[in-house]
Amino acid sequence: MVFWKKLFNNTETTANSTTSSFEGEVLSSSDMDVSQSRIVFSTERDLDLYELEELCDRVGWARRPLRKVKKAIQHSFLVVSMWEIKGKKKRLIGFARATSDCAFNATIWDVVVDPDFQSQGLGKAMMKYTIKKLRSADISNITLFADPQVVNFYRRLGFMVDPEGIKGMFWYPD
Amino acid sequence: MVFWKKLFNNTETTANSTTSSFEGEVLSSSDMDVSQSRIVFSTERDLDLYELEELCDRVGWARRPLRKVKKAIQHSFLVVSMWEIKGKKKRLIGFARATSDCAFNATIWDVVVDPDFQSQGLGKAMMKYTIKKLRSADISNITLFADPQVVNFYRRLGFMVDPEGIKGMFWYPD
Repeated sequence: MVFWKKLFNNTETTANSTTSSFEGEVLSSSDMDVSQSRIVFSTERDLDLYELEELCDRVGWARRPLRKVKKAIQHSFLVVSMWEIKGKKKRLIGFARATSDCAFNATIWDVVVDPDFQSQGLGKAMMKYTIKKLRSADISNITLFADPQVVNFYRRLGFMVDPEGIKGMFWYPD
Repeated sequence: MVFWKKLFNNTETTANSTTSSFEGEVLSSSDMDVSQSRIVFSTERDLDLYELEELCDRVGWARRPLRKVKKAIQHSFLVVSMWEIKGKKKRLIGFARATSDCAFNATIWDVVVDPDFQSQGLGKAMMKYTIKKLRSADISNITLFADPQVVNFYRRLGFMVDPEGIKGMFWYPD
């Protein structure tokens, strides 16, 4: 099992600024065995949709038309991806995105972490990165809809269930 | 008290296509006393922000910077307004907007109906119009966050609280 320090570097960094537009924020590794690898966060939205689909497959999500996934990414306010970088190889290991009115509210959707990288604080780190990005855009009301098994995960990040009795509600077509 | 038929006309109509870009959907009046007035829905987003602020004042909402309201409207996926039309006068009596990824999810925010026009089925009609517009854009997951006193209003429109244990969660800055 690999453990990662749950610490961001203080500055935004570029993984390889000369050969790639892949910009992100580096999470340090504390494990000697993987000293050649780093975890990097990015808000680039030019993702390989097949790689994203593969990640979603790994957590058992129902497949969605890539055409619609592409459109959803294009029209999201924020797209966050998490990568394991080993030498010249990068592997997509996490994803989240948010819709927003760019002013008051944001809603986070499609939070996924590769099962091989779960339970190491990486989901938490990715969510903190996401919150930080939304806060830097002056969004104050950050919302999401959590499946029962991840409610406590989000609670630990400071999310509240039904504050002041406000209820999340869903409408689906018949 | 004025009562309105809770029925849409079957076709989209233009209130005055030659002199105005104000397009909407007409809700018929069933009250003889107000036979000269109509209720019209619109998705035009070129709203008078002061008129909108006045409407929000009437339901006791905290004021928000108009600069941010303008930005939120610009970046909403759908903006719905409800108008009372009397002769050449129109009065803003309802408002709702939705953020969306244009593909899977929408979230409805800022639903407001003028107190003078509440309890007449107009809020319900405005929400049905909003849902219809989102559905016509192929959005299947329509969500919102409901204050306790309006949960049953949304239930009657087909919204479900916490389906399959999914919880609405909020993060606010400290």
